[in-house]
Amino acid sequence: MSINAPRGTQDILPGASEKWQYVEKKLVDLCRRYHYKEIRTPIFEHTELFQRGVGDSTDIVQKEMYTFEDRGGRSVTLRPEGTASVVRSFVQNKVHGSPNQPTKYFYIGPMFRYERPQQGRQRQFVQFGIEALGSDDPAIDAEVLALALDSYREMGLTSLRLVLNSLGDLESREAHRNALIRHFDPHREELCADCQVRLDQNPLRVLDCKKDRDHPAMETAPSILDYLNTYSKEYFDKVKEYLDLMGIEYEIDPNLVRGLDYYNHTAFEIMSDAEGFGAITTLSGGGRYTGLVEEVGGPATSGIGFAMSLERLLMALEAEGVQLPIDEGLDCYLVALGEEAEKVSVRVAYQLRKAGIQVDKDYLGKKMKAQFKTADRLGAKFVLILGDREVEENVINVKDMVSGEQKEIPLDDIETHMKNQLLGGE
Amino acid sequence: MSINAPRGTQDILPGASEKWQYVEKKLVDLCRRYHYKEIRTPIFEHTELFQRGVGDSTDIVQKEMYTFEDRGGRSVTLRPEGTASVVRSFVQNKVHGSPNQPTKYFYIGPMFRYERPQQGRQRQFVQFGIEALGSDDPAIDAEVLALALDSYREMGLTSLRLVLNSLGDLESREAHRNALIRHFDPHREELCADCQVRLDQNPLRVLDCKKDRDHPAMETAPSILDYLNTYSKEYFDKVKEYLDLMGIEYEIDPNLVRGLDYYNHTAFEIMSDAEGFGAITTLSGGGRYTGLVEEVGGPATSGIGFAMSLERLLMALEAEGVQLPIDEGLDCYLVALGEEAEKVSVRVAYQLRKAGIQVDKDYLGKKMKAQFKTADRLGAKFVLILGDREVEENVINVKDMVSGEQKEIPLDDIETHMKNQLLGGE
Repeated sequence: MSINAPRGTQDILPGASEKWQYVEKKLVDLCRRYHYKEIRTPIFEHTELFQRGVGDSTDIVQKEMYTFEDRGGRSVTLRPEGTASVVRSFVQNKVHGSPNQPTKYFYIGPMFRYERPQQGRQRQFVQFGIEALGSDDPAIDAEVLALALDSYREMGLTSLRLVLNSLGDLESREAHRNALIRHFDPHREELCADCQVRLDQNPLRVLDCKKDRDHPAMETAPSILDYLNTYSKEYFDKVKEYLDLMGIEYEIDPNLVRGLDYYNHTAFEIMSDAEGFGAITTLSGGGRYTGLVEEVGGPATSGIGFAMSLERLLMALEAEGVQLPIDEGLDCYLVALGEEAEKVSVRVAYQLRKAGIQVDKDYLGKKMKAQFKTADRLGAKFVLILGDREVEENVINVKDMVSGEQKEIPLDDIETHMKNQLLGGE
Repeated sequence: MSINAPRGTQDILPGASEKWQYVEKKLVDLCRRYHYKEIRTPIFEHTELFQRGVGDSTDIVQKEMYTFEDRGGRSVTLRPEGTASVVRSFVQNKVHGSPNQPTKYFYIGPMFRYERPQQGRQRQFVQFGIEALGSDDPAIDAEVLALALDSYREMGLTSLRLVLNSLGDLESREAHRNALIRHFDPHREELCADCQVRLDQNPLRVLDCKKDRDHPAMETAPSILDYLNTYSKEYFDKVKEYLDLMGIEYEIDPNLVRGLDYYNHTAFEIMSDAEGFGAITTLSGGGRYTGLVEEVGGPATSGIGFAMSLERLLMALEAEGVQLPIDEGLDCYLVALGEEAEKVSVRVAYQLRKAGIQVDKDYLGKKMKAQFKTADRLGAKFVLILGDREVEENVINVKDMVSGEQKEIPLDDIETHMKNQLLGGE
């Protein structure tokens, strides 16, 4: 009886794993250039962290978390997102005490949400994200936006849209909130049950409702942008000015909201316009937050960040038909026949691998012809042939599989010869 | 009130994360040369997998697993090791049907065991491991041993010992088992309660007992090596011969046993002899197994693999005082003063980052002197200075922080200039 992987999880096998390696390497290099450094937090945290840091009222915390008691009876949860853990680590390790502020982190790793699996949405998925903690300079908002967009552009994607909004500061949001209540209150009875509650608790989330999205009052709802106070408006203007200076295009969407009180000022999403990308066109989202560091026990510190799903990045690459520059071939395949040749081949394989060359060989006792077939199937660039005669004469036959050319090389020279062929000399 | 990371887990922060990146990158490159390809399996699996694949009677399954019910009521477990998941994936994805056998995988990722945390033993730890499935050629045993040893050597470690044993095939183990029972039975009452049970169920594990290790009968216990049948003896001889051919030193320890029925033939451990490495000197272990693929629902397929903890690898590097070649500096720090200069610096930072250069700047509105101090603290190789005068004259001042030399460069040439300085020209 066989056992399968849990629903909503996947195995990433060779053929696909090289793509993951490639995009992760590119993202790490991108972060290096922007001077964001890697942080790795645990896969699970105390449940309380997400209740506080993601928000008790959110769908994530209420319905989607993998929460359980460990053997010591403490409630722990597989992380559903990255920001809460990064902020917890920032506080626990007292990083706010370092003179090098803002603190600029990136992370890549698995996250977990118990949702109905569908294309581009797995229960275990990989997020790449960044957080910049400790600065209120609009220039860092622009930096985060630029890095977010570059995360896709550097892979070769072009059908991208950066959608931007400002949620303003607390005063602006309060003014907007009151305007929203005044606007929707006459339609209260027409809204869905959830929105009737939202209208009292967090009217901003009404704008985000999937059920009521076609209600006529949505169209005419007051825009946050009309309620920004002077500081918030100037902040937003600066962010846009920096984007203009960098030549980064964006569009403003005053309905782009984020549900939690933590969020303020800059909010954004990156969308794919690629045909065939499917219904979920959002690739990633992010924004500025305040109060989160305090909530987790640290000093007043604001932050800005964004997170993206690597699964969706790979889907977008697929949708745009981007060919990643991945070499799936093999440098050398060693073909050996006979007991003595086998011994020499073990030694030569080891020697070449030590020298930096990629080598494989037969481990099934196949006939010579079948070994050649395997070499072909594996995309070997060179086949190195050892038979009884070669062993006796202390040579090895090197066949270039592209040109078809074959050369006999003294066994003692094989390392130098292959280095010249494959690594551009010593 | 602050929240800490769960006990036995850790945050890996900048300063340490670069070391992790370095060793992982080296391991990935090592696997490339040996032609082992990456597989990524889910963080959690159905609990049944580990009950069958690791073994119901093991400490891991009985005491150390993070097991819980998901929201659908299925029992899942955070993976305590890598082999069971790799084998499950091999079966589920019908990889045994591929013509390219053996299947050679590597994996790197977090594993979870609920143990008492101590130095070098965390509840969440990272394992690197390989599995070669589908070959019974002693040459692949030698390959796995070589790769395991190279995993440490390539990092610069030298105080290493490869300890080797053969557990033989089923017939040999059966003969040895009977000899063990005959040997220990007269001392049954003197052994610990666990060993009295082990003596009937799995007498091999008596040899592994920490309580009874000083019992005189241990010293004189029959060695598996005296019970190997012809096939098993020849198999072991071949493995040793290949190691000799590769110039790899090893020592034989007939008491190196692995507790489960799955294991056969080659078993090994790599130990550190470094002073100050601490009590746990085993860096990694591995060996050959059979029956595991069938247990998980696949066709008869034998395998061999090994796994190592990256935490212990890093401890060994520390103990041997190996300096990893990690550049912790920063290419460029942009110092800007004044509103116009700030705007130019945002644009120049973006331009240089796009060109592959690492750049950071101030985001706290610091005075010029404080910005220079930050640049110094971050280990900037170059400081790029933009003041009102520079902006007006459309130039930028470049200071080489090593030589102290300062140069004024036209703003339009800054990308080319910095590329020449840092990337060895275009």
